[in-house]
Amino acid sequence: MYDVSVPVFSERLRALTIVLTKAEANAAERKIDPNVFLTARLAPDMLNLTKQVQIATDHAKGAPSRLAGRAVPRYEDNEASFAELQARVAKTRDYLATFKPEEFEGSDERTVTLKIGGNDVELKGLKYLLDVAMPNFYFHVTTAYGILRHNGVPLGKGNFLGRD
Amino acid sequence: MYDVSVPVFSERLRALTIVLTKAEANAAERKIDPNVFLTARLAPDMLNLTKQVQIATDHAKGAPSRLAGRAVPRYEDNEASFAELQARVAKTRDYLATFKPEEFEGSDERTVTLKIGGNDVELKGLKYLLDVAMPNFYFHVTTAYGILRHNGVPLGKGNFLGRD
Repeated sequence: MYDVSVPVFSERLRALTIVLTKAEANAAERKIDPNVFLTARLAPDMLNLTKQVQIATDHAKGAPSRLAGRAVPRYEDNEASFAELQARVAKTRDYLATFKPEEFEGSDERTVTLKIGGNDVELKGLKYLLDVAMPNFYFHVTTAYGILRHNGVPLGKGNFLGRD
Repeated sequence: MYDVSVPVFSERLRALTIVLTKAEANAAERKIDPNVFLTARLAPDMLNLTKQVQIATDHAKGAPSRLAGRAVPRYEDNEASFAELQARVAKTRDYLATFKPEEFEGSDERTVTLKIGGNDVELKGLKYLLDVAMPNFYFHVTTAYGILRHNGVPLGKGNFLGRD
Protein backbone atom coordinates (compact mmCIF):
# COMPACT_ATOMS: atom_id res chain seq x y z
CA MET A 1 0.00 0.00 0.00
CA TYR A 2 2.94 2.33 0.72
CA ASP A 3 4.58 1.48 -2.61
CA VAL A 4 1.47 2.25 -4.63
CA SER A 5 0.67 5.51 -2.84
CA VAL A 6 3.44 7.61 -1.24
CA PRO A 7 6.13 7.36 -3.97
CA VAL A 8 3.49 7.79 -6.69
CA PHE A 9 2.15 11.01 -5.20
CA SER A 10 5.65 12.30 -4.56
CA GLU A 11 6.95 11.53 -8.03
CA ARG A 12 3.90 13.04 -9.78
CA LEU A 13 4.21 16.17 -7.65
CA ARG A 14 7.88 16.41 -8.59
CA ALA A 15 6.75 16.40 -12.22
CA LEU A 16 4.12 19.05 -11.44
CA THR A 17 6.93 21.24 -10.08
CA ILE A 18 8.67 21.04 -13.45
CA VAL A 19 5.45 21.93 -15.27
CA LEU A 20 4.80 24.92 -13.00
CA THR A 21 8.38 26.15 -13.29
CA LYS A 22 8.13 26.11 -17.08
CA ALA A 23 4.77 27.85 -16.96
CA GLU A 24 6.06 30.68 -14.81
CA ALA A 25 9.12 31.13 -17.03
CA ASN A 26 6.92 31.16 -20.12
CA ALA A 27 4.65 33.83 -18.64
CA ALA A 28 7.70 36.02 -17.98
CA GLU A 29 9.07 35.42 -21.46
CA ARG A 30 5.76 36.27 -23.15
CA LYS A 31 5.17 39.18 -20.72
CA ILE A 32 1.93 37.61 -19.57
CA ASP A 33 0.72 38.39 -16.06
CA PRO A 34 1.20 35.10 -14.14
CA ASN A 35 -2.34 35.52 -12.84
CA VAL A 36 -3.61 34.87 -16.35
CA PHE A 37 -2.26 31.33 -16.09
CA LEU A 38 -3.14 30.91 -12.40
CA THR A 39 -6.78 31.75 -13.08
CA ALA A 40 -7.08 29.98 -16.44
CA ARG A 41 -9.52 27.11 -16.89
CA LEU A 42 -10.55 24.73 -19.67
CA ALA A 43 -14.26 25.51 -19.36
CA PRO A 44 -16.15 28.25 -17.52
CA ASP A 45 -17.47 25.72 -15.01
CA MET A 46 -14.17 23.98 -14.39
CA LEU A 47 -11.69 24.96 -11.70
CA ASN A 48 -8.73 27.19 -12.47
CA LEU A 49 -5.06 26.26 -12.37
CA THR A 50 -4.56 27.33 -8.76
CA LYS A 51 -7.43 25.13 -7.58
CA GLN A 52 -6.22 22.18 -9.68
CA VAL A 53 -2.86 22.33 -7.91
CA GLN A 54 -4.47 22.81 -4.51
CA ILE A 55 -6.77 19.82 -4.91
CA ALA A 56 -4.01 17.61 -6.33
CA THR A 57 -1.96 18.28 -3.21
CA ASP A 58 -5.05 17.73 -1.03
CA HIS A 59 -5.30 14.17 -2.34
CA ALA A 60 -1.55 13.65 -2.03
CA LYS A 61 -1.54 14.61 1.65
CA GLY A 62 -4.99 13.20 2.42
CA ALA A 63 -4.78 9.69 1.04
CA PRO A 64 -1.59 8.54 2.78
CA SER A 65 -2.74 10.21 6.01
CA ARG A 66 -6.08 8.40 5.98
CA LEU A 67 -4.49 5.07 5.06
CA ALA A 68 -1.88 5.40 7.79
CA GLY A 69 -4.41 6.55 10.38
CA ARG A 70 -2.91 10.01 10.76
CA ALA A 71 -4.86 13.29 10.90
CA VAL A 72 -4.85 15.05 7.53
CA PRO A 73 -2.76 18.27 7.68
CA ARG A 74 -4.81 21.38 7.01
CA TYR A 75 -3.65 23.94 4.45
CA GLU A 76 -5.08 27.43 4.19
CA ASP A 77 -5.73 27.36 0.43
CA ASN A 78 -4.54 30.94 0.02
CA GLU A 79 -1.85 30.51 -2.64
CA ALA A 80 -1.79 33.50 -4.99
CA SER A 81 1.39 33.07 -7.02
CA PHE A 82 3.48 30.41 -8.72
CA ALA A 83 5.97 30.66 -5.84
CA GLU A 84 3.24 29.94 -3.31
CA LEU A 85 1.89 27.01 -5.33
CA GLN A 86 5.40 25.62 -5.61
CA ALA A 87 5.80 25.99 -1.84
CA ARG A 88 2.57 24.06 -1.34
CA VAL A 89 3.77 21.26 -3.60
CA ALA A 90 7.16 21.18 -1.85
CA LYS A 91 5.52 21.13 1.58
CA THR A 92 3.37 18.21 0.47
CA ARG A 93 6.39 16.29 -0.80
CA ASP A 94 8.19 16.97 2.50
CA TYR A 95 5.17 15.61 4.33
CA LEU A 96 5.06 12.51 2.12
CA ALA A 97 8.70 11.88 3.00
CA THR A 98 7.72 11.44 6.67
CA PHE A 99 5.70 8.26 5.98
CA LYS A 100 7.17 4.86 6.74
CA PRO A 101 6.04 1.71 4.90
CA GLU A 102 5.14 0.06 8.26
CA GLU A 103 2.37 2.61 8.79
CA PHE A 104 0.52 1.13 5.81
CA GLU A 105 0.44 -2.48 6.98
CA GLY A 106 -3.13 -3.72 6.72
CA SER A 107 -4.32 -0.40 5.30
CA ASP A 108 -5.81 -2.11 2.23
CA GLU A 109 -8.48 -3.56 4.52
CA ARG A 110 -8.69 -0.61 6.94
CA THR A 111 -11.96 1.33 6.76
CA VAL A 112 -11.63 4.93 5.62
CA THR A 113 -14.52 7.34 6.22
CA LEU A 114 -14.97 10.15 3.73
CA LYS A 115 -17.41 13.02 3.38
CA ILE A 116 -18.86 12.72 -0.13
CA GLY A 117 -21.65 15.15 -0.95
CA GLY A 118 -22.24 15.81 2.77
CA ASN A 119 -22.64 12.11 3.61
CA ASP A 120 -20.23 9.83 5.42
CA VAL A 121 -19.07 7.10 3.06
CA GLU A 122 -17.04 4.15 4.31
CA LEU A 123 -14.59 2.45 2.00
CA LYS A 124 -11.86 -0.12 2.43
CA GLY A 125 -8.41 1.45 2.12
CA LEU A 126 -7.52 -0.22 -1.16
CA LYS A 127 -10.76 0.83 -2.81
CA TYR A 128 -10.42 4.36 -1.46
CA LEU A 129 -6.90 4.66 -2.82
CA LEU A 130 -7.59 3.19 -6.27
CA ASP A 131 -11.15 4.37 -6.95
CA VAL A 132 -11.18 7.77 -5.23
CA ALA A 133 -7.79 9.23 -4.33
CA MET A 134 -5.72 8.22 -7.37
CA PRO A 135 -8.26 9.07 -10.10
CA ASN A 136 -8.93 12.43 -8.45
CA PHE A 137 -5.24 13.15 -7.98
CA TYR A 138 -4.41 12.27 -11.58
CA PHE A 139 -7.41 14.24 -12.79
CA HIS A 140 -6.11 17.42 -11.20
CA VAL A 141 -2.43 17.11 -12.16
CA THR A 142 -3.41 16.30 -15.74
CA THR A 143 -5.93 19.15 -15.92
CA ALA A 144 -3.30 21.56 -14.59
CA TYR A 145 -1.04 20.46 -17.45
CA GLY A 146 -3.92 20.72 -19.95
CA ILE A 147 -4.75 24.28 -18.88
CA LEU A 148 -1.15 25.34 -19.46
CA ARG A 149 -0.85 23.55 -22.81
CA HIS A 150 -4.10 25.16 -23.91
CA ASN A 151 -2.56 28.52 -23.04
CA GLY A 152 0.45 27.89 -25.22
CA VAL A 153 3.02 26.95 -22.61
CA PRO A 154 5.65 24.82 -24.38
CA LEU A 155 5.36 21.56 -22.48
CA GLY A 156 5.49 17.95 -23.57
CA LYS A 157 4.30 14.70 -22.10
CA GLY A 158 7.86 14.08 -20.96
CA ASN A 159 7.48 17.01 -18.59
CA PHE A 160 4.20 15.62 -17.31
CA LEU A 161 6.01 12.35 -16.69
CA GLY A 162 8.80 14.10 -14.79
CA ARG A 163 11.52 14.89 -17.29
CA ASP A 164 12.99 18.40 -17.22
CA MET B 1 0.07 -6.31 -8.95
CA TYR B 2 -3.20 -7.60 -10.40
CA ASP B 3 -5.26 -5.56 -7.91
CA VAL B 4 -3.49 -2.30 -8.73
CA SER B 5 -3.61 -2.76 -12.51
CA VAL B 6 -6.40 -4.81 -14.15
CA PRO B 7 -9.42 -3.59 -12.13
CA VAL B 8 -8.11 -0.01 -12.24
CA PHE B 9 -7.85 0.02 -16.03
CA SER B 10 -11.21 -1.69 -16.39
CA GLU B 11 -13.03 0.66 -14.03
CA ARG B 12 -11.54 3.80 -15.57
CA LEU B 13 -12.46 2.56 -19.05
CA ARG B 14 -16.00 1.92 -17.83
CA ALA B 15 -16.08 5.58 -16.78
CA LEU B 16 -14.68 6.61 -20.17
CA THR B 17 -17.59 4.79 -21.79
CA ILE B 18 -20.01 6.99 -19.83
CA VAL B 19 -18.12 10.12 -20.86
CA LEU B 20 -18.12 9.12 -24.55
CA THR B 21 -21.81 8.19 -24.46
CA LYS B 22 -22.69 11.62 -23.08
CA ALA B 23 -20.46 13.31 -25.63
CA GLU B 24 -22.12 11.56 -28.56
CA ALA B 25 -25.58 12.36 -27.22
CA ASN B 26 -24.61 15.99 -26.73
CA ALA B 27 -23.31 16.27 -30.30
CA ALA B 28 -26.65 14.96 -31.57
CA GLU B 29 -28.59 17.31 -29.32
CA ARG B 30 -26.58 20.36 -30.42
CA LYS B 31 -26.57 19.18 -34.05
CA ILE B 32 -22.78 19.11 -34.07
CA ASP B 33 -21.04 16.71 -36.43
CA PRO B 34 -19.55 14.04 -34.11
CA ASN B 35 -16.27 14.44 -36.01
CA VAL B 36 -15.93 17.89 -34.48
CA PHE B 37 -15.56 16.26 -31.07
CA LEU B 38 -13.55 13.29 -32.35
CA THR B 39 -10.95 15.58 -33.89
CA ALA B 40 -10.95 18.23 -31.16
CA ARG B 41 -7.79 18.95 -29.20
CA LEU B 42 -6.75 21.26 -26.36
CA ALA B 43 -3.79 22.71 -28.24
CA PRO B 44 -2.73 22.51 -31.90
CA ASP B 45 0.20 20.25 -30.99
CA MET B 46 -1.77 17.94 -28.74
CA LEU B 47 -3.54 14.77 -29.89
CA ASN B 48 -7.23 14.76 -30.68
CA LEU B 49 -9.98 12.94 -28.82
CA THR B 50 -9.80 9.81 -30.98
CA LYS B 51 -6.07 9.43 -30.33
CA GLN B 52 -6.52 10.07 -26.60
CA VAL B 53 -8.97 7.16 -26.41
CA GLN B 54 -6.78 4.95 -28.59
CA ILE B 55 -3.68 5.55 -26.48
CA ALA B 56 -5.56 5.13 -23.19
CA THR B 57 -6.70 1.68 -24.36
CA ASP B 58 -3.17 0.91 -25.60
CA HIS B 59 -1.87 1.32 -22.06
CA ALA B 60 -4.80 -0.63 -20.61
CA LYS B 61 -4.13 -3.64 -22.85
CA GLY B 62 -0.36 -3.23 -22.91
CA ALA B 63 0.50 -2.93 -19.24
CA PRO B 64 -1.26 -6.07 -17.96
CA SER B 65 -0.01 -8.03 -20.97
CA ARG B 66 3.59 -7.06 -20.35
CA LEU B 67 3.32 -7.69 -16.61
CA ALA B 68 1.75 -11.10 -17.16
CA GLY B 69 4.22 -12.05 -19.90
CA ARG B 70 1.61 -12.16 -22.66
CA ALA B 71 1.99 -10.71 -26.14
CA VAL B 72 0.27 -7.31 -26.42
CA PRO B 73 -2.81 -7.56 -28.69
CA ARG B 74 -2.54 -5.37 -31.78
CA TYR B 75 -5.33 -2.99 -32.73
CA GLU B 76 -5.62 -1.34 -36.12
CA ASP B 77 -6.12 2.22 -34.83
CA ASN B 78 -8.73 2.94 -37.47
CA GLU B 79 -11.66 4.06 -35.30
CA ALA B 80 -13.62 6.83 -37.04
CA SER B 81 -16.79 7.19 -34.96
CA PHE B 82 -17.99 7.20 -31.37
CA ALA B 83 -19.41 3.70 -31.94
CA GLU B 84 -16.02 2.42 -33.06
CA LEU B 85 -14.24 4.06 -30.13
CA GLN B 86 -16.78 2.52 -27.76
CA ALA B 87 -16.18 -0.87 -29.40
CA ARG B 88 -12.45 -0.44 -28.82
CA VAL B 89 -12.99 0.39 -25.17
CA ALA B 90 -15.38 -2.56 -24.77
CA LYS B 91 -12.93 -4.93 -26.50
CA THR B 92 -10.20 -3.77 -24.13
CA ARG B 93 -12.40 -4.34 -21.09
CA ASP B 94 -13.26 -7.83 -22.39
CA TYR B 95 -9.56 -8.52 -22.79
CA LEU B 96 -8.84 -7.26 -19.26
CA ALA B 97 -11.46 -9.69 -17.96
CA THR B 98 -9.36 -12.61 -19.24
CA PHE B 99 -6.51 -11.94 -16.79
CA LYS B 100 -6.16 -14.03 -13.64
CA PRO B 101 -4.41 -12.70 -10.52
CA GLU B 102 -1.99 -15.69 -10.60
CA GLU B 103 -0.50 -14.40 -13.85
CA PHE B 104 0.84 -11.38 -11.96
CA GLU B 105 2.74 -13.24 -9.26
CA GLY B 106 6.26 -11.83 -9.11
CA SER B 107 5.51 -9.30 -11.83
CA ASP B 108 6.59 -6.39 -9.61
CA GLU B 109 10.17 -7.66 -9.98
CA ARG B 110 9.84 -8.98 -13.54
CA THR B 111 11.82 -7.01 -16.14
CA VAL B 112 9.71 -5.28 -18.77
CA THR B 113 11.39 -4.03 -21.96
CA LEU B 114 9.90 -0.98 -23.62
CA LYS B 115 10.70 1.04 -26.70
CA ILE B 116 11.06 4.64 -25.52
CA GLY B 117 12.24 7.12 -28.14
CA GLY B 118 13.53 4.25 -30.30
CA ASN B 119 15.65 2.77 -27.52
CA ASP B 120 15.03 -0.38 -25.50
CA VAL B 121 14.48 0.55 -21.89
CA GLU B 122 14.31 -2.09 -19.18
CA LEU B 123 12.23 -1.47 -16.10
CA LYS B 124 11.05 -3.59 -13.20
CA GLY B 125 7.34 -4.36 -13.46
CA LEU B 126 6.30 -2.24 -10.50
CA LYS B 127 8.19 0.80 -11.74
CA TYR B 128 6.83 0.31 -15.25
CA LEU B 129 3.27 0.12 -13.98
CA LEU B 130 3.48 3.09 -11.59
CA ASP B 131 5.86 5.44 -13.41
CA VAL B 132 4.99 4.76 -17.07
CA ALA B 133 1.73 2.92 -17.70
CA MET B 134 -0.54 4.49 -15.06
CA PRO B 135 0.52 8.14 -15.52
CA ASN B 136 0.19 7.77 -19.29
CA PHE B 137 -3.17 6.02 -19.02
CA TYR B 138 -4.57 8.62 -16.65
CA PHE B 139 -3.14 11.40 -18.80
CA HIS B 140 -5.11 10.23 -21.82
CA VAL B 141 -8.44 9.49 -20.10
CA THR B 142 -8.29 12.85 -18.33
CA THR B 143 -7.35 14.71 -21.49
CA ALA B 144 -10.23 13.04 -23.36
CA TYR B 145 -12.55 14.37 -20.66
CA GLY B 146 -10.90 17.81 -20.77
CA ILE B 147 -11.34 18.07 -24.54
CA LEU B 148 -15.05 17.35 -24.22
CA ARG B 149 -15.55 19.73 -21.30
CA HIS B 150 -13.72 22.42 -23.25
CA ASN B 151 -16.18 21.83 -26.08
CA GLY B 152 -19.16 22.36 -23.83
CA VAL B 153 -20.22 18.78 -23.23
CA PRO B 154 -22.14 18.75 -19.93
CA LEU B 155 -20.00 16.42 -17.85
CA GLY B 156 -18.96 16.49 -14.23
CA LYS B 157 -16.16 14.89 -12.27
CA GLY B 158 -18.65 12.27 -11.12
CA ASN B 159 -18.83 11.04 -14.71
CA PHE B 160 -15.05 10.94 -14.92
CA LEU B 161 -15.08 8.85 -11.76
CA GLY B 162 -17.64 6.45 -13.21
CA ARG B 163 -21.06 7.71 -12.18
CA ASP B 164 -23.76 7.89 -14.84
